[in-house]
Amino acid sequence: MSAKILNGREIAEAVLSEVKGEVRRLAAEYGIQPGLAVIRVGNDPASAVYVANKVKACREAGIRSEHIHLPESVSSDELFKRLEMLNSDSQTDGILVQLPLPDHLDSQKILESIEVEKDVDGFHPMNVGRLSQGRECLAPCTPAGVIEILKRSGIKIEGQNAVIVGRSNIVGKPLAAMLLNENATVTICHSRTRNLEEITRSADILVAAIGRPGFIREQHIRPGAAVIDVGINRVSDKDFAAELFEGEELGRRISAIENRGSTLVGDVNPREAMRIAGYYTPVPGGVGLLTVAMLLKNTIAAAEIRRRIDETAKAVS
Amino acid sequence: MSAKILNGREIAEAVLSEVKGEVRRLAAEYGIQPGLAVIRVGNDPASAVYVANKVKACREAGIRSEHIHLPESVSSDELFKRLEMLNSDSQTDGILVQLPLPDHLDSQKILESIEVEKDVDGFHPMNVGRLSQGRECLAPCTPAGVIEILKRSGIKIEGQNAVIVGRSNIVGKPLAAMLLNENATVTICHSRTRNLEEITRSADILVAAIGRPGFIREQHIRPGAAVIDVGINRVSDKDFAAELFEGEELGRRISAIENRGSTLVGDVNPREAMRIAGYYTPVPGGVGLLTVAMLLKNTIAAAEIRRRIDETAKAVS
Repeated sequence: MSAKILNGREIAEAVLSEVKGEVRRLAAEYGIQPGLAVIRVGNDPASAVYVANKVKACREAGIRSEHIHLPESVSSDELFKRLEMLNSDSQTDGILVQLPLPDHLDSQKILESIEVEKDVDGFHPMNVGRLSQGRECLAPCTPAGVIEILKRSGIKIEGQNAVIVGRSNIVGKPLAAMLLNENATVTICHSRTRNLEEITRSADILVAAIGRPGFIREQHIRPGAAVIDVGINRVSDKDFAAELFEGEELGRRISAIENRGSTLVGDVNPREAMRIAGYYTPVPGGVGLLTVAMLLKNTIAAAEIRRRIDETAKAVS
Repeated sequence: MSAKILNGREIAEAVLSEVKGEVRRLAAEYGIQPGLAVIRVGNDPASAVYVANKVKACREAGIRSEHIHLPESVSSDELFKRLEMLNSDSQTDGILVQLPLPDHLDSQKILESIEVEKDVDGFHPMNVGRLSQGRECLAPCTPAGVIEILKRSGIKIEGQNAVIVGRSNIVGKPLAAMLLNENATVTICHSRTRNLEEITRSADILVAAIGRPGFIREQHIRPGAAVIDVGINRVSDKDFAAELFEGEELGRRISAIENRGSTLVGDVNPREAMRIAGYYTPVPGGVGLLTVAMLLKNTIAAAEIRRRIDETAKAVS
């Protein structure tokens, strides 16, 4: 048996196509163009790439985007002032502060000063709390992408045993809340978990989000399970790559290491997962591709919630 | 083997004695008396009893309390106005709105209008979110009482398998966050869970919070586990009582049914739990007795956080 690969690109494209349709509908029915503001501080090269991708995706979807690039030395006060302006700007539906921020800025305080209804990253404690309570909220993009992949692949969530390895505030914990809201039985494991293999082997849906390359192996996976790999790690050791990949894929990975110094891998050993799992999300090409799509989806949701556009409004208009 | 009974009264008294000590310290070192405001709307007889208990406990601990009793017909506006006054009153450290509220009032909106730092019930989404993120917050009293019982009984939490049956916003979900913050491996089960017995039998710590009398039985319990019963149900059927109790205890329960029409039972079958579990919290006499003690502890914490009294402040003063 060989696991069915869940193609992140196809699913992301389906989401983006729906987002575009919704952008057109908002323009036609309400004369509204949703807007996303992205704040980037300093010159972290990875952040520059991420922000460029987000801005490009907005443009392609018809969402107005604003990229505010502030110098590394920007003061807290200046940043708060910018956020206040965006919070009160009626044309800005979503606000995102690209992390990490320089050390002199208090990330938590800054994230908490984003207007809750515009917090499209879903990191504000109000959104975290509402998500936990099962209320309307803006949910974080990466775990929302996991739910999207499961649903669009026809993988049943309700009543299934979902096991999450990793308890970060960005992935593990919010994903636990989302899977619980979808009526899964949810277990969160982490570095202090004793009998990890036994617990993960009970999972119908196994999510790895720990940041350890190839950590989830054969003995962790129940035959036929859906294995969702949220990890993104760089590997530069060819012998280790040979434990993770085989055949043509291994060839590609070795070339990547030789040409670029490293190759991207997840938290799951793909060779072993492919042999045992029922479904598997590759890295790259899996969950990671959904994140930007979910950000745009959140921006549309933020626009509709804040501007009180819903089916009722539609019926009335 | 017979389970060790975890005595809620003794543990509550230990907490209350520490609260009293802290009240004395705040008076002596800072000239501060913490204050709790309790709002009760209408004439629900159970609410009247609960509020009276809270006010009495405050008096005994030296905490100033204010009982605001509003008529059933009070308007949202009037209630919001009262809350605003309490939010801005510098002498009020904790605010509690006794639930349930009459149908014409939007409970969620009212709870969200309590100042986050005074929300001693811990139901505000900001506190829920902060709890989930492992940050400083005011945590809800009943699940906080469960943690208190475990810790003061020397029951190890870190690395243990904790299984919670029930996913309410008041108990199950916040308790999951707290147990995770204490480094347990946490599973949340509920009505859609498939293989409940198998999962609960893997628990070192098993928490029942579902509201079904005697639901957790022999086959759900791992020998030696700590079984924490958060349920409070009324049973008026003597035959059913005979399934739950034996000997003298059964005699007392039968009398209660005959004299008062019903007897209070938890979500766990106590006869079977006593035979199999390592530790067991009875109902009544277990978790329920901690709730008011934790409310006072929260009020002290709210006073200290809001008035910025901590070890640093102490060293400086």
